[in-house]
Amino acid sequence: MKLGCCYYPEHWPEEMWAEDARRMAKMGLSLVRIGEFAWSRIEPEPGRYDWGWLDRAIDTLHADGLQVILGTPTATPPKWLVDKMPDMVAIDEQGHPRGFGSRRHYCFSHEGYRAECRRIVAVLAERYGNHPAIVMWQTDNEYGCHDTVLSFSDAAASAFRGWLAARYGTPQALNEAWGNVFWSMEYRSFAEVDPPHLTVTEANPAHWLDYRRFASHQVASFNREQVEIIRAHSQGRDITHNFMGFFTEFDHHDVGRDIDVATWDSYPLGFLEQFWFSAEEKRAYLRQGHPDIAAFHHDLYRGCANARWGVMEQQPGPVNWARFNPAPLPGMVALWTLEAAAHGAEFTSYFRWRQAPFAQEQMHASLLRPDSSEAEAAPEVRTASAILAEIGPQQAARAPVALVFSYEAAWTIGIQPQGQSFRYLELVFETYSALRARGLDVDIVAPRADLSAYRVVIVPTLPIMPEGFADKLGALGCPVLIGPRSGSRTASFRIPEGLAPGDLKPLIPLTVTRVESLRDGFSEPAEGFAVTRWREDVESELAPELADTAGRGVVYSQNNVRYCAIWPDRTLLALLVERMAQEAGVPLIDLPDGIRLRRSTSHAFTFNYAKEPVFVPHLGKTLAPAACDIAAL
Amino acid sequence: MKLGCCYYPEHWPEEMWAEDARRMAKMGLSLVRIGEFAWSRIEPEPGRYDWGWLDRAIDTLHADGLQVILGTPTATPPKWLVDKMPDMVAIDEQGHPRGFGSRRHYCFSHEGYRAECRRIVAVLAERYGNHPAIVMWQTDNEYGCHDTVLSFSDAAASAFRGWLAARYGTPQALNEAWGNVFWSMEYRSFAEVDPPHLTVTEANPAHWLDYRRFASHQVASFNREQVEIIRAHSQGRDITHNFMGFFTEFDHHDVGRDIDVATWDSYPLGFLEQFWFSAEEKRAYLRQGHPDIAAFHHDLYRGCANARWGVMEQQPGPVNWARFNPAPLPGMVALWTLEAAAHGAEFTSYFRWRQAPFAQEQMHASLLRPDSSEAEAAPEVRTASAILAEIGPQQAARAPVALVFSYEAAWTIGIQPQGQSFRYLELVFETYSALRARGLDVDIVAPRADLSAYRVVIVPTLPIMPEGFADKLGALGCPVLIGPRSGSRTASFRIPEGLAPGDLKPLIPLTVTRVESLRDGFSEPAEGFAVTRWREDVESELAPELADTAGRGVVYSQNNVRYCAIWPDRTLLALLVERMAQEAGVPLIDLPDGIRLRRSTSHAFTFNYAKEPVFVPHLGKTLAPAACDIAAL
Amino acid sequence: MKLGCCYYPEHWPEEMWAEDARRMAKMGLSLVRIGEFAWSRIEPEPGRYDWGWLDRAIDTLHADGLQVILGTPTATPPKWLVDKMPDMVAIDEQGHPRGFGSRRHYCFSHEGYRAECRRIVAVLAERYGNHPAIVMWQTDNEYGCHDTVLSFSDAAASAFRGWLAARYGTPQALNEAWGNVFWSMEYRSFAEVDPPHLTVTEANPAHWLDYRRFASHQVASFNREQVEIIRAHSQGRDITHNFMGFFTEFDHHDVGRDIDVATWDSYPLGFLEQFWFSAEEKRAYLRQGHPDIAAFHHDLYRGCANARWGVMEQQPGPVNWARFNPAPLPGMVALWTLEAAAHGAEFTSYFRWRQAPFAQEQMHASLLRPDSSEAEAAPEVRTASAILAEIGPQQAARAPVALVFSYEAAWTIGIQPQGQSFRYLELVFETYSALRARGLDVDIVAPRADLSAYRVVIVPTLPIMPEGFADKLGALGCPVLIGPRSGSRTASFRIPEGLAPGDLKPLIPLTVTRVESLRDGFSEPAEGFAVTRWREDVESELAPELADTAGRGVVYSQNNVRYCAIWPDRTLLALLVERMAQEAGVPLIDLPDGIRLRRSTSHAFTFNYAKEPVFVPHLGKTLAPAACDIAAL
Repeated sequence: MKLGCCYYPEHWPEEMWAEDARRMAKMGLSLVRIGEFAWSRIEPEPGRYDWGWLDRAIDTLHADGLQVILGTPTATPPKWLVDKMPDMVAIDEQGHPRGFGSRRHYCFSHEGYRAECRRIVAVLAERYGNHPAIVMWQTDNEYGCHDTVLSFSDAAASAFRGWLAARYGTPQALNEAWGNVFWSMEYRSFAEVDPPHLTVTEANPAHWLDYRRFASHQVASFNREQVEIIRAHSQGRDITHNFMGFFTEFDHHDVGRDIDVATWDSYPLGFLEQFWFSAEEKRAYLRQGHPDIAAFHHDLYRGCANARWGVMEQQPGPVNWARFNPAPLPGMVALWTLEAAAHGAEFTSYFRWRQAPFAQEQMHASLLRPDSSEAEAAPEVRTASAILAEIGPQQAARAPVALVFSYEAAWTIGIQPQGQSFRYLELVFETYSALRARGLDVDIVAPRADLSAYRVVIVPTLPIMPEGFADKLGALGCPVLIGPRSGSRTASFRIPEGLAPGDLKPLIPLTVTRVESLRDGFSEPAEGFAVTRWREDVESELAPELADTAGRGVVYSQNNVRYCAIWPDRTLLALLVERMAQEAGVPLIDLPDGIRLRRSTSHAFTFNYAKEPVFVPHLGKTLAPAACDIAAL
Repeated sequence: MKLGCCYYPEHWPEEMWAEDARRMAKMGLSLVRIGEFAWSRIEPEPGRYDWGWLDRAIDTLHADGLQVILGTPTATPPKWLVDKMPDMVAIDEQGHPRGFGSRRHYCFSHEGYRAECRRIVAVLAERYGNHPAIVMWQTDNEYGCHDTVLSFSDAAASAFRGWLAARYGTPQALNEAWGNVFWSMEYRSFAEVDPPHLTVTEANPAHWLDYRRFASHQVASFNREQVEIIRAHSQGRDITHNFMGFFTEFDHHDVGRDIDVATWDSYPLGFLEQFWFSAEEKRAYLRQGHPDIAAFHHDLYRGCANARWGVMEQQPGPVNWARFNPAPLPGMVALWTLEAAAHGAEFTSYFRWRQAPFAQEQMHASLLRPDSSEAEAAPEVRTASAILAEIGPQQAARAPVALVFSYEAAWTIGIQPQGQSFRYLELVFETYSALRARGLDVDIVAPRADLSAYRVVIVPTLPIMPEGFADKLGALGCPVLIGPRSGSRTASFRIPEGLAPGDLKPLIPLTVTRVESLRDGFSEPAEGFAVTRWREDVESELAPELADTAGRGVVYSQNNVRYCAIWPDRTLLALLVERMAQEAGVPLIDLPDGIRLRRSTSHAFTFNYAKEPVFVPHLGKTLAPAACDIAAL
Repeated sequence: MKLGCCYYPEHWPEEMWAEDARRMAKMGLSLVRIGEFAWSRIEPEPGRYDWGWLDRAIDTLHADGLQVILGTPTATPPKWLVDKMPDMVAIDEQGHPRGFGSRRHYCFSHEGYRAECRRIVAVLAERYGNHPAIVMWQTDNEYGCHDTVLSFSDAAASAFRGWLAARYGTPQALNEAWGNVFWSMEYRSFAEVDPPHLTVTEANPAHWLDYRRFASHQVASFNREQVEIIRAHSQGRDITHNFMGFFTEFDHHDVGRDIDVATWDSYPLGFLEQFWFSAEEKRAYLRQGHPDIAAFHHDLYRGCANARWGVMEQQPGPVNWARFNPAPLPGMVALWTLEAAAHGAEFTSYFRWRQAPFAQEQMHASLLRPDSSEAEAAPEVRTASAILAEIGPQQAARAPVALVFSYEAAWTIGIQPQGQSFRYLELVFETYSALRARGLDVDIVAPRADLSAYRVVIVPTLPIMPEGFADKLGALGCPVLIGPRSGSRTASFRIPEGLAPGDLKPLIPLTVTRVESLRDGFSEPAEGFAVTRWREDVESELAPELADTAGRGVVYSQNNVRYCAIWPDRTLLALLVERMAQEAGVPLIDLPDGIRLRRSTSHAFTFNYAKEPVFVPHLGKTLAPAACDIAAL
């Protein structure tokens, strides 16, 4: 696995560049991402390009053997462009413009801005497309960051109408699909349809789902325009986009189809603070991050672009953007690097080379401090670099377990949670964590993935079953676990005619006759576990495999297929993992709290995420905090 | 008591209607409400009416002997109408339009929309006014739902100015009444007055109170326009409107004067989740609802329209709109039905016949599931129907206790809580609950009600005493309890000249010299109870009847009148109920937790709202959860 | 110390004025503030002045020997003025106008409104400037109340651009100072710069800091315009403005330079409720206020205008504006009065003479009730008046300890908290409280103050060191304590070249290499205290004076200078106070909980803020709740 960093030559005097490049190479870095926010320096005035500095920056890096990932600057249109077309900014759900002064101040649907993006990408790609230093392009930066996927601008409304017309053909078909007869919401023409915001109470969930699909489609098509231009001018180079963590606002599987390498920006401590971990977990993993945060996303994004992936931004110290921003435990930066390698990353790039002393991210730690002295992460990078050299390139092996992940499922649950603690990402993460706690490697895959080679397949929930998916599941011989709410909606956000689980009924003969959500703090006992948050009433000829203390069925199984009719708590998840692994003949390992294991095709990596030393039975030894044991297989 | 259901023929293929009607009748239903959201089907394009489907739907129901309640569709104006007059939508307090895409997207003050409503109601009433199936009309649907009473549109501002001119005559009179000299808020003309929103800090409370009175007046006059048109075309039919639970945004007593039958929409589980019950209570009554929720509203709305009332929408299973949506305990739907009968309802109509598989309420359980199979509530409806047939029609007897309820009081306290935990509805509900916990039947009445026949009268609080109300209280010979803040404001939201309790002073010689609100978690001990939330300093020649441990008076009494100078906690309420009942010679019963009792003129109904079986001393037997014991008197 | 009250003759019938004046004088009051909200009565229509009532009101007060403080009415422009120039209102951060209907509905940057203010102030000053009753003028009222310092109007944007042009000269200089190259935020002209709101994510902190400086500058210049007009027409009279509590939105030191006397509005019970005290403290001091609230502000505002200061509004009973509004313990109004005297106030004026029975503040207790009877505070005023007469005029002695307070520091921390529990005011208040708990008198001073005569100097934090401040500290021989984050930013909100503590390095040789914020509930043990909220990694040749249990340095010292590298908890603050006092030879006193001590040049005042009697060792006796012991020195 290569190492790299994010670098902003435009932030520093030109005299510093050569020394920076020299030090990067010496630290073990071979990749440098540049340029993704530099529009105002590339084109300081409309139509006047200033290439000199960028030519020299690339050449300087190249001179030290560094390879360059060049970003397109479309996440930060300059002020003159916004002033030229003020309606290019997104409009928030309350109707306020989201203006200039930070970044991502554009609406994905604005045709004028899209034309400007095509222009700037084209001139960039023409100029540097064949430069020997350039090995990869990054389109834009973190699509959707700061809640920017959805826009309620006139441009978005107009594009939405066109998208609906293409999807439904006639307003009558749309009315029928959405059930607009309810509350007299019928349209006589597509021109009558607005985005689903500023309604008196919630809009039709079908309206929302289509708006989310449309918005995701706009992100993908915005990205595709850049990809096509770059491909035309820069053959042989990879194209990537840097995804974010715990983020489902657009369909990353769709964008993944258009790029060569999926990358993501890994900030375990910031994500710990923001996700639904308990206060106790947040204290226990304050300086390490929960042990599954990075791994979860590695496995998720590996499933996006033909298994090619990397870490574009790796947290090297405290960040600036969470509610609280602690420093990583000594060793964690090296550990995070090796965790990426264990999962088969092509590279890990640290964000950023040197901490900026100005502007929004001045409190974001880097490999160097603002005064160019080495920060705490620097020696850890050298350590990781040495270890990586020793163990050689790592390939991710196919995992025994597939976890099916769906962005549409996230939207569907988000639009209609029905109980406020039913959260898609939390359900998937808890399931993932239960697998990994027993030493299992996991592939997180799209519904369209080939599942035939897996030994266990888990669908935490999939309210809308894509065409053919149920048949694909049915064809599997391995243990399959299907979670609550699966098959409960059609593609038009309707309850299927024969009720849930809809298309899954041929696999497991049951009907969900009623569902209920339970308030936080309320639970009902079952065999070792508890029923919380969600339960479904099931009618079935099957006797339940597991029931609650009152005898109500909770898990049903037939042949190799299980259906779980409640929100599974950790105890139930552990039990189900145990049973399925046993059935599949997949060996499990009892890992102590904080210990995680991941195998590449050649090595087994054991990580200690706890803040204390932990004795690890499968190694027969104690691992210090932040330590990683690597054993050849 | 009749049973019925809410039905949406326009949601289903016409082929299903006859079978639906047959099944309704067989299930014991005799009433069907239809039409209240069907504008886009009745008038699919401006001026083009499509009566055929509605003719056939009514005839189909009629053919099976079902009686029809026909709703006017004015809660859901179609898109073409909104596009014709975009300024008809309400404007929220932040100045945002509340647009199309759900329901209730109109401003009560928009003259253009009012004209459209008169037109559609007139054509409906003309066509069906004398149809033999039609027994009742419902105007619009749930006025005020989704926070729609207040609007800050230009239409509302203009109507408000007219309302003020009519009330005050001159701007000088308005300035004087409101005390606008304070902060130079004086107006030179009514045209200068705006709605009281978007001010830098809170607006004048008198300004707010008049805006609330005006807004309530607009609801009543909007409703009256429909009532008058219907009366003209549909003689001999009743007119109703379906009120909501825990809702005080407009004066239901005023609207009640214009209709024949007050109905309300009863969702005990959703209301449990949303009201100020403790987390412990919410867990204890998760699937039953607090035992006083339905009864409270039955008794409240019975006091609105000459004692004629019913339940227009009865929760039959989990709903879709609360934070958490559990399922009722088996038997609860029957219990809720019988509780309505015990309180003298003319009918209970379940919402809805069949669960919609699409749109906003697809997660709202019904009597039938979307696939037309019977849901859990269906057999309970049959059970209730059989019991009702057995016991025959029930009449509400006059209760021994009157609880005086005032919408204006709710607004006054809401505008000026002075302590954030002083909540009008909570105070009234706690008082009601203390009475009902001792087996007392209660009438909740408007201040204008005749109180002369009651044996105990309670005014939880009445900051503004209506003209003559104090005299009416003074003329009573029975025990009277008057709560804190009563008489503390004039009609113009001013402190009365002789201080609180103003007009009440002739009844009980005391003066409230100072009030204080106490933060949550702070209390001061008294004789068995505690002083929390609110206390008043009282000057009086009277020795207090009850004092706190430090000797400060808490309850004062003279002759038959008591004044309570603190927020009464449950212990104090129980004590006061005990004393007054004793004085009035009204017998009390010690009901175990979760047990409630209600008498009609002919029967005594005992309900178990607990989730466990409970031994009931006055019955000498144990009631199962959700059980109802009915004994002839 | 004189006593006074706030009076609104325009609120009462003219017949009451003479009696009011007589009673004021008899109660011991000699000062009356009037007029500050009376614009609509002074100028009921554009250009038509009504002086008669004000002439008579002033004369009536004068006739009883009362001195008048006359307020300019610019906090409450009348409706006709707002209608004349609707764009004079402020625009909030979300873009909504902040309209008429309460007060402070103006933007400090609106030139048209400024002209109107100059006009009304000029006519007032011309008419009454030499009236023998007038001894002081108050400009406007509570600048910034209700969050009114910042406005995002066009007027503000335009003025901001001018302010930036004056500060930076060229857009290039601004871009360089702010680091606008980051995210392509560079401007080509000042006309391109907007206020930093409605950005997609946070704006550049340098952009925010300059916007806050600009907004503060606008307040000061708005005030200065009035001051200059008044000085021209009313020679020999003092000018004041009444500041608020716990409020840092503009630089009070700047405004203080233009006025003669700094006054403030003291509401200890309301402030207790609103500040970051624990729930336990809020219960313990519910009716007394935390013992340091009033003292803190007395000491703060004494440092604003050449040590001349007073209390313009003193809470006399429950107020109307906090979440909960309890009544003061008997004696507290007298205690608060004496606390002001002990700190050297020139006067204390109660808000207000008589409680208004109408409008927004009708629940605000006063010296008289609305019915003119005496409220609870009245006898306490007489008591205080008698004591003050007995002890004679009090002068504040220079305190041994200086606490350096910076409004710019408050903005800097507020713009970039980095951890959500790092709050400037809380840090300063906790430090102040630790000093006062040991009986120390404190001067709270501006960074520009002369520090040379103090025996201990504390800088709780000062991220941006003003020019020359480090040198000034360096020249001190006394113990100096410098808190975390000091010297961590340049004037342009950049990290200094040699890292923090920047300019302080010559005083104490250390470098802050990394900082971290810690989530609430997380702590790490040290010697008696704990590390919470914030910690800095320090590189230094010095051995730490104090370290945590793991050996990481926490406090560093060299010669007389200490640097504290963590958020100091109460234990650590107590320890540091102890050490510094010992080093400085300043005697400490162990004060029991709730007891506070303050010395004037002539007397020692000991106050009991506890709600129970407390034995006070240094007095050798027990003080009742709310008691004050005064001993001649």
